[in-house]
Amino acid sequence: MFSIHTITNKPWSVEQCIARYAAAGVQGITLWRYNFEGRDPAAVGRMIRDAGLSCTGLARAGFFPAVTGAARSAAVDENRRAIDEAAASGAPVLVLVCGAVPGQPLEVSRGQITEGIAACLDHARAARVKLAIEPLHPMYADDRSAIVTTAQANDVCDALGSPPEVGLALDVYHTWWDEALPAEIVRAGQGNRLFSFHVCDWRTPTVDLLNDRGLMGEGCIPLRSLKAQVRAAGFTGLDEVEVFSTRWWAADQDDYLARIVRSWQEHCA
Amino acid sequence: MFSIHTITNKPWSVEQCIARYAAAGVQGITLWRYNFEGRDPAAVGRMIRDAGLSCTGLARAGFFPAVTGAARSAAVDENRRAIDEAAASGAPVLVLVCGAVPGQPLEVSRGQITEGIAACLDHARAARVKLAIEPLHPMYADDRSAIVTTAQANDVCDALGSPPEVGLALDVYHTWWDEALPAEIVRAGQGNRLFSFHVCDWRTPTVDLLNDRGLMGEGCIPLRSLKAQVRAAGFTGLDEVEVFSTRWWAADQDDYLARIVRSWQEHCA
Repeated sequence: MFSIHTITNKPWSVEQCIARYAAAGVQGITLWRYNFEGRDPAAVGRMIRDAGLSCTGLARAGFFPAVTGAARSAAVDENRRAIDEAAASGAPVLVLVCGAVPGQPLEVSRGQITEGIAACLDHARAARVKLAIEPLHPMYADDRSAIVTTAQANDVCDALGSPPEVGLALDVYHTWWDEALPAEIVRAGQGNRLFSFHVCDWRTPTVDLLNDRGLMGEGCIPLRSLKAQVRAAGFTGLDEVEVFSTRWWAADQDDYLARIVRSWQEHCA
Repeated sequence: MFSIHTITNKPWSVEQCIARYAAAGVQGITLWRYNFEGRDPAAVGRMIRDAGLSCTGLARAGFFPAVTGAARSAAVDENRRAIDEAAASGAPVLVLVCGAVPGQPLEVSRGQITEGIAACLDHARAARVKLAIEPLHPMYADDRSAIVTTAQANDVCDALGSPPEVGLALDVYHTWWDEALPAEIVRAGQGNRLFSFHVCDWRTPTVDLLNDRGLMGEGCIPLRSLKAQVRAAGFTGLDEVEVFSTRWWAADQDDYLARIVRSWQEHCA
C-alpha cells in the first residue's frame, strides 16, 4: 500500500496526479504547497477524497532558524499558514524541513527549530494537524536542515516534552547511511512518532545533490530492511514514493507512473 | 603553518607544485599517487626535501571492501604497494579512503575494512608509514566509504587494538556537520590518532558532489573552532589545504595559489 508525492510527477498538475494515481490503483497522494497555487486547499482535498485516494501529508513547512527574531517570528507565521492549508485539504501531517542558516552553528539552529515548533504547537493541535520533523541528509546541513540525523529529530521531540502532535518523517534517502538508524527507529516507535515513511533510492553515481534520486531498485538503499524496521516499530501508514529526479521528470509521465507502481511492488511490497 | 595537497592545483605537475609552493612560503606538500606516474617516488621525495618542503602525506589507498575474497586480497596488495610508495617518497602518512560496495550492507563493508587494514599492519610498521583512516561525508557512503563518521573511524582503530600505526585523517569537509565530532576529536586525541587535518570549505549552494569544494572562507564550516579542537586534542602537524574544485582548477593557478595563502592566513592561522 503506497502513496505518491506529487513532486515525483512534477510535470503534472495536482488534478492530473489525482486522476492518474487513482486510475493506476495507487492508494494515496502527498501534496506540496505549490499544488494549491490558484486553488482552494479544501477543494483539492475534496477532489482527492472523491477520487478515492487517501491524503498522506503536505510538504513542506519548517525553515525556522534565522538570524533575527523578526525573521523567526515570520517563519512561525508561515508555518501556521501551512498548518491551516494542511487542515483545509485534509492532510493529516505537515512535513517540516527544519532549516539552517549558513555559518550559524548547527546547535544554535537546532535550538531555534525547537522554539519554532513549540510556537506552532497550539495551532497544530487546534487544527488536528501533526508536525513531522524530517531529518535531512548531512549534505543539506548548510542551508536546509540542522537536523541531519534521526537521533536529532527524536531529541527535538524529547526537548518539546514529547507532545503527540510532533513526530518524524523518515525518508530512506536522508537516513540510510546512519549506523544509529535502527536504534532511532525503535526509539521513535516507542514515542509513537513515526508519522511518515518516504521511499526512493540512492543512485551510484549521484550527479546532483537535489534532483538525482533513484526509483526504488535503482540504487543501494536496503528498502525492505528499513520498511520492516518501521513496521516493527509500529508505523501503519502508507509508504510514500518521493523521487526528485530531473531525469524522470523528463520522461513520459504515464510510462513513469507505471514504472513507479512496478518498482514499489518489486522492492517494497 | 600549512601544506597543500597537489590535487588542489590539479593542472600543475608535481614539479610545478613543489617549486611554486616553496616559492610561496608554503611549508608542506601532500601527494596523490598520480603524482608518481612516470616518476620514481624516491626522486619525488628528494625533490620535495631539496625544496625545503615537508611531505605531509600520500593520498590515497584503501578501497578494501569487495564481494569476492580474491578482490579483497588484491586490494590489500594494492595498499601494500601504496605503503611502499609512501615510504620511498618520505610521506609519513598514507590516507585511506576505505571503500564501500553499493548494495552491500555498510556494516559488512566496515568489517572488511577492518580486516583489510589488519592485513596491512605489519607492512606499514616495517615501512614506518602510518595509515590514516579518513571518514568521508555520508554522501559518499554508496561506493567510496562505509566509514562516514569520526566515531566509526575511531571504532575501527579500537577493533584493531589501537596499533600506533593506525589513526585518522580528519577533513573538515567530511565531518563538520556531525554533532558527535567534538567528542570524537577528543577520543582520537586520547589515542594519539590525529595524523592529518584537512581544511577547505562547504559552499552554499554546492553544485557537485565531488568537485565543488570551497576555499577556506567561501563557506560555512567553523574552521577556527575545528582547528582549535584538533590542536587541543594534541594534533601538532600542518593543516593540509585540500580543495577539489572544477571552478578553481579552471583559474590561473599562480593567482589561485596566492589566494590560497591569503585564505589560510585569514581563516586558519
